[in-house]
Parts: sequence; C-alpha cells; structure tokens
Amino acid sequence: MDITLSIPDWVARELSHYPEFFLTHEDRMRMIIHFSKLNFEYGTGGPFAAGVFEQNTGKLISAGVNIVVPSNCSSAHAEIMALSIAQKKLETFDLGGPGIPSHGLVVNWRPCAMCYGAVLWSGVRSLVIAGSGKELEEITGFDEGPLHQDWKEELKRRGINVTDNVLSDDACEVFRAFTENNGFVYNPCRENHLK
Amino acid sequence: MDITLSIPDWVARELSHYPEFFLTHEDRMRMIIHFSKLNFEYGTGGPFAAGVFEQNTGKLISAGVNIVVPSNCSSAHAEIMALSIAQKKLETFDLGGPGIPSHGLVVNWRPCAMCYGAVLWSGVRSLVIAGSGKELEEITGFDEGPLHQDWKEELKRRGINVTDNVLSDDACEVFRAFTENNGFVYNPCRENHLK
Repeated sequence: MDITLSIPDWVARELSHYPEFFLTHEDRMRMIIHFSKLNFEYGTGGPFAAGVFEQNTGKLISAGVNIVVPSNCSSAHAEIMALSIAQKKLETFDLGGPGIPSHGLVVNWRPCAMCYGAVLWSGVRSLVIAGSGKELEEITGFDEGPLHQDWKEELKRRGINVTDNVLSDDACEVFRAFTENNGFVYNPCRENHLK
Repeated sequence: MDITLSIPDWVARELSHYPEFFLTHEDRMRMIIHFSKLNFEYGTGGPFAAGVFEQNTGKLISAGVNIVVPSNCSSAHAEIMALSIAQKKLETFDLGGPGIPSHGLVVNWRPCAMCYGAVLWSGVRSLVIAGSGKELEEITGFDEGPLHQDWKEELKRRGINVTDNVLSDDACEVFRAFTENNGFVYNPCRENHLK
C-alpha cells in the first residue's frame, strides 16, 4: 500500500518565470504569497504555500502548496509538501545534515500545529513567516491548532532561527481574497472548535 | 513533482494472520505494539506504529509504521502513514465526515508535536495511546517536540476522545529493545536539543 501526493502542474509552469535564486526574504516571500493565491484561484487547495531555499544563496529547492482536498489527504499541507519534495530531491531526511548547504523554509503564515512539528523534524535551520498572529484564523476561519506557548523559543533551542512579519499585509490580503471568494474551509470538527 | 510513500511489504503479510476486527482497545494496541517492534527488527524504520480502526466495530482500516529513514522523508511517521492510507482507502480527507462510521487512531505512544496536529486535522474521533509520559524520550533518546500544555483538553475540545495507558509496559519494553539493539535515532538538531 502506498500514497502518492502530487504538486499541481501549474507550480512548475509558474516557476519557469522566476529566477533560480531569490536573494532576500522579501523576494522569497513574495513568490510564496503569490503561489498561496494561485492555489485557491486554480482550485487546487487552500491559500497556503511554502518553499525550501538554500539559506545563503537563495536557490529554490522546492515549492509546495496545500493539496488537502483534491488529494483526500489531511496532512498534505504546503509545508509538508515543500519539505518532503526537498528531501526527495536531495535524497536525505535531514535538510540540515552534513555535507549539504543549510536550508530554510518560507511560509505565508505561522505553520499550524502539525506543520510546526514537521519544521522541527525536517532539518531546516530557519523559518521565515509572513506573520504569526490571529489574522489567519480570524480572516479565513481555519483552525491552526494549539501550539506550545514558547513555540518560537523551542524552535531556536533546536537551532532553527525564526524571522516573522515579512510582507504580512500582502499575506492577509490573500486570506481576505480567499474568504471573499467563499473559499472552502475544511477543518474537521470545526463546529466543535468554534463552539 | 510528486512524492510516493510506501508501507513495507511485511505489514500486509503480518496482517494476514490477524482477524478483520479488533474488539477491545487492548486487542488493537497489542497488534500496534507488535508492529512497532517488527518495524525496527525488519530495518524499515523507528519503533513506531499506528492504526486506524472503525471505533465501534473495531474493523482495521489501515496500519502504518515509521518509514522516515528508508523513505528520506522526515514527515513519514507512523501516524501520518496510517491516517493518509485510511483517507486514501475511504476517499475522504475527513475520517469523521458525514455518511461514514466514526474512526479512531491507536498509537504506541503519545504522538510527537507533528503527529499531534495530524490527529487534529484527520477527522478521527478518538486517540488511544499506550502512554504519554517521558518514558519514550528517556528510553530511546527521540525528541518528541513541545506540545501545548493542555494538549489532551485541546483534543477533547475538537471532539477527539483520548484513552491513555493501554499496555504501557509492553510499549516501553519495545523501546528498550530498540535501544539495546542500538536503534538509530535520527532527530535533526538533536545535539542542540540535548544541550
């Protein structure tokens, strides 16, 4: 028995318009936020995208988007997809392993409870996020789950540096567009959560 | 670009010796703990296994094991595998969705930080674990990551019932066997964590 998860075809097509290297946090985030928007516009998933980059050169290793609904897989969040594809490409389960450059993950908001753990185990040395406040949940209605109260410090303690608030307004604009388009929020037990 | 994750062949072979239905929590856990042992004995991953069952009938829907190292995928934990395969079989991203029986997840210890979130989003209505204390980390050296201090209540708040301490000693015995066999602990940044 096996599971196959596929990144939508439009991702490779869109990436062909971008350079190989993304020099600044903003360059990387701008692309990721654009992909978060394209993902629901193309109907291939929720408004979330993530990318793995070589930290120093800015070379893009992988781009992932949320494909939960079309894949029938509740774990197929953007971060899990980006991290798994990067690990497949580099043939390692540890993106911080010996003999390879350091890698970082860029995401269009703070990872949910699951993806927070996925970041911990991936070997990335940095996490760059557009924001970490309640805006995502408030605008879209997605439940992001409970995190440890010292979630940032727990990342740092494991050698993962966090950069927050990169193009935060642009990220929220996409969440608002998603909501205005009646984007489908699929959290199981959502009614329990919102009670 | 896609990712394919495969359950080792021995899982189906072993399952053929079991009945279709597992009536009690102990019946379900005994099989899962046995699989957690077989997984490192066969060299197919760490000492972790998980299964999705129909809550009322005890019908086994899927069994997953940790395949992080052989798959080069740090997210390929037992819980993610079991949940994803169950969702693929039932063709839904929500194991608690309308028109299907309620499902529960059985795991040989408290899920790590990542799999905790995966449980939240999967739609299962119950989580049955062998234990939730520090024993796993202390015996094996695996880092399980930081959880929200009210992690059990946060599950219940989303309609997921938790049963703890099912065959706890048997689970720990497997962890000890893993350690005595010099089982490979692959946590990235482990040295940072243990400092």
